[in-house]
Amino acid sequence: MKPKPKPKNILFVMFDQLRWDYLSCYGHPHLKTPNIDRLASRGVRFTRAYVQSPICGPSRMSTYTGRYVHSHGASWNGIPLKVGEMTMGDHLRAAGMGCWLVGKTHMRADAEGMRRLGLDPDSIIGARVAECGFDVFERDDGMVAIGPDGPLENPDDHRYSHYLRERGYAGDNPWHDHANSGVDAAGNVLSGWFMKNAAEAANIEEPDSETPYLTRRAMEFIEQASAPWLCHLSYIKPHWPYIVPAPYHTMYDTSHIKPAVRTNEEFDNAHPVLKAFMTSPVGKAFSRDEVREAVIPAYMGLIKQCDDQIGLLLEWLDQTGRMDDTMIVLTSDHGDFLGDHWMGEKTFFHDTSVKIPLIIFDPSSDADATRGTVCDELVESIDLLPTFLEIAGAIRKPSATSWKASRWCPSCMAGRKARIVTASSANMITLPLPSPSGWGSARARRSSSWSPTGGTS
Amino acid sequence: MKPKPKPKNILFVMFDQLRWDYLSCYGHPHLKTPNIDRLASRGVRFTRAYVQSPICGPSRMSTYTGRYVHSHGASWNGIPLKVGEMTMGDHLRAAGMGCWLVGKTHMRADAEGMRRLGLDPDSIIGARVAECGFDVFERDDGMVAIGPDGPLENPDDHRYSHYLRERGYAGDNPWHDHANSGVDAAGNVLSGWFMKNAAEAANIEEPDSETPYLTRRAMEFIEQASAPWLCHLSYIKPHWPYIVPAPYHTMYDTSHIKPAVRTNEEFDNAHPVLKAFMTSPVGKAFSRDEVREAVIPAYMGLIKQCDDQIGLLLEWLDQTGRMDDTMIVLTSDHGDFLGDHWMGEKTFFHDTSVKIPLIIFDPSSDADATRGTVCDELVESIDLLPTFLEIAGAIRKPSATSWKASRWCPSCMAGRKARIVTASSANMITLPLPSPSGWGSARARRSSSWSPTGGTS
Repeated sequence: MKPKPKPKNILFVMFDQLRWDYLSCYGHPHLKTPNIDRLASRGVRFTRAYVQSPICGPSRMSTYTGRYVHSHGASWNGIPLKVGEMTMGDHLRAAGMGCWLVGKTHMRADAEGMRRLGLDPDSIIGARVAECGFDVFERDDGMVAIGPDGPLENPDDHRYSHYLRERGYAGDNPWHDHANSGVDAAGNVLSGWFMKNAAEAANIEEPDSETPYLTRRAMEFIEQASAPWLCHLSYIKPHWPYIVPAPYHTMYDTSHIKPAVRTNEEFDNAHPVLKAFMTSPVGKAFSRDEVREAVIPAYMGLIKQCDDQIGLLLEWLDQTGRMDDTMIVLTSDHGDFLGDHWMGEKTFFHDTSVKIPLIIFDPSSDADATRGTVCDELVESIDLLPTFLEIAGAIRKPSATSWKASRWCPSCMAGRKARIVTASSANMITLPLPSPSGWGSARARRSSSWSPTGGTS
Repeated sequence: MKPKPKPKNILFVMFDQLRWDYLSCYGHPHLKTPNIDRLASRGVRFTRAYVQSPICGPSRMSTYTGRYVHSHGASWNGIPLKVGEMTMGDHLRAAGMGCWLVGKTHMRADAEGMRRLGLDPDSIIGARVAECGFDVFERDDGMVAIGPDGPLENPDDHRYSHYLRERGYAGDNPWHDHANSGVDAAGNVLSGWFMKNAAEAANIEEPDSETPYLTRRAMEFIEQASAPWLCHLSYIKPHWPYIVPAPYHTMYDTSHIKPAVRTNEEFDNAHPVLKAFMTSPVGKAFSRDEVREAVIPAYMGLIKQCDDQIGLLLEWLDQTGRMDDTMIVLTSDHGDFLGDHWMGEKTFFHDTSVKIPLIIFDPSSDADATRGTVCDELVESIDLLPTFLEIAGAIRKPSATSWKASRWCPSCMAGRKARIVTASSANMITLPLPSPSGWGSARARRSSSWSPTGGTS
């Protein structure tokens, strides 16, 4: 058989709010995810992968910039990523690889910064800055919310809403009324925003719901794209609203729910900040068994639907030959407490919220020895960008010089981190150090006691 | 007497490489600095003021952005401050206060970032971005260095060099040959780059040397400026080359040198990074007594000249009425090992390099009770920007809301810090915290055990 070379493309799949332990390859006892498991069996599964923040926006901005939150500054949802921050797209395009979005980023454009620097949002530069460096094939951040005066964002900007209308779903906000709500016998909308409706079937044909829609959009992107490309297929689900179309809404019941990880002692002795979160409305809700019993089966159904879509996608990639020249990375932006530690949502640095599933499939023959292996090294979501840059050919030698040559200044956090190496045994970090004659470099294994990243990463 | 209102202007004086303990108000036993001491007697002197980095560039970029080095990313001299970073100038101008430079910034423009965003360096926006937010009255970074092929930077860009030529100083680089070198009887240049020449008099009339020149330029700025303004009078000295014109070159001798702070044990057991610095050429040089005995008297002479110039400046400000409406802040960008801990230069986080003198004079009647007082609170150079913003009127109430109203997003490090308060006893920090309904705020004294900045600042 002809050896397969380094992949040309990268399919970078991210789920939203997918817990690492809600996949069967990570040990969930009842939720079977054979398709994601199959990807793991052909790639490397990381058991200690962590995001930089357990909140969508900051976590993603770290992934997309390769930098820690304290460095890029987008520290909470809705805080803009500052104009001028270098992104995955800036780095990859400079290396000759396109960087395209299909789905969610949670990017808030730095409109004030763009005005300050005189950047026109309608220019190519302005559009990329506003979309955190991606060229947009489809943007879908989900959550088309309605306030007392109507939709909070213009639903006309939302292609998926158009699609739903074209498919005959009625109402001002078919995203809400159909994709994310049930319906009762009298035709009343049972909103998925209310957790009491989690056991309903979403009032939509399953293939029209958001996860299959985005899968098809990714296929449409790949069909028309010329290599090399990175496609960020960024699903909204299994993020709340916790509601899923048939047949997924009845696949799981209370017998499939893992017990909550919590003790009375941790509640009684909680740090005031954690205690405030435990006693907030969402914390109190998820501390009640009936809420967990309503929500978790729907959450599991959403994940099962995601796994089925990954199955369709992998099959299609096999048929079209793209499995031979495309690296596939599958991960999440954070987890979900689901009542663990007396909390709901994410926000804090418990494993249930900050630890993520991470699977990397590299089709090249060099990676054959790693197939189906498990890697217990500590890796972080900011390690992905240098990994992608290696695939794009921007990093030929992991030396300080090559980082500088590829315009990664020593201040760039990603420049200090190990790339995730799946195809070889190398686990080296390279970091710049000052020397009297300019920049030198030191190389150290992570385990070295003198490794400057050892204590701080 | 009519009460004096809040000051209209800010004179922000920075010295380069001035050790905190080389002023008589900070206890130097031999070096008398009566003019700086006089400012301290009319203001507040801070005994625990620290820079964010003991290197010119990163330290200044923190001061000018109000953010930590890991956040703004300009982590070493020559590393550009990224395009898009908000600066003192951006914040102050938005509050209606001009922000002008007279002297040094050590800013390296992010030329690549400007190209990427299509910013024209010759536009007003581009020029401010390239000058880290300042409007330039005079830029003088000193160090007009010559390599084997001539000057390393175009000396025509350097107004002070022009001035020297107009004053009749000859040569391609009068900055080097006259302001920073001696001369022997045969007319040979004795370069101040060589520490063996430190005891020479610089071959220049004292009023033509760099410190008096910049003092006069500040007066020229102030004379033509209309309030409100911040003037960053940023002296090059007492930074090396260690050479000073007469009469300052003979004012101090070995009897005035404080003993080096160092032990054999700290050399023998040094961390490898420190040991490398100790055994670098500059470390080895400053470990020798004859080097200290040559350099330190010249360094003290440079500081004495600085103090005399501050005397002239304060007198002039009194005469012109500017002492009544101008806050004066006097500080340094870092210190100088001068052989302490077996090292020269700065670079590491010892008090001799990272601790700075800081004196704040507030002319308003509200500050009368604080005159001549000493403040032992821990303050940092990033605290200056919010302090200046308060003077500019951008911060009326120190609440999270007002920070947001003044466009300080919660991710902005400075927004999390206490302002330096000289005119009242308040020492509160305000920081944003998430709440289910959006941003709330928590207020805490620094000393509170729950203060989130307590452990990390």
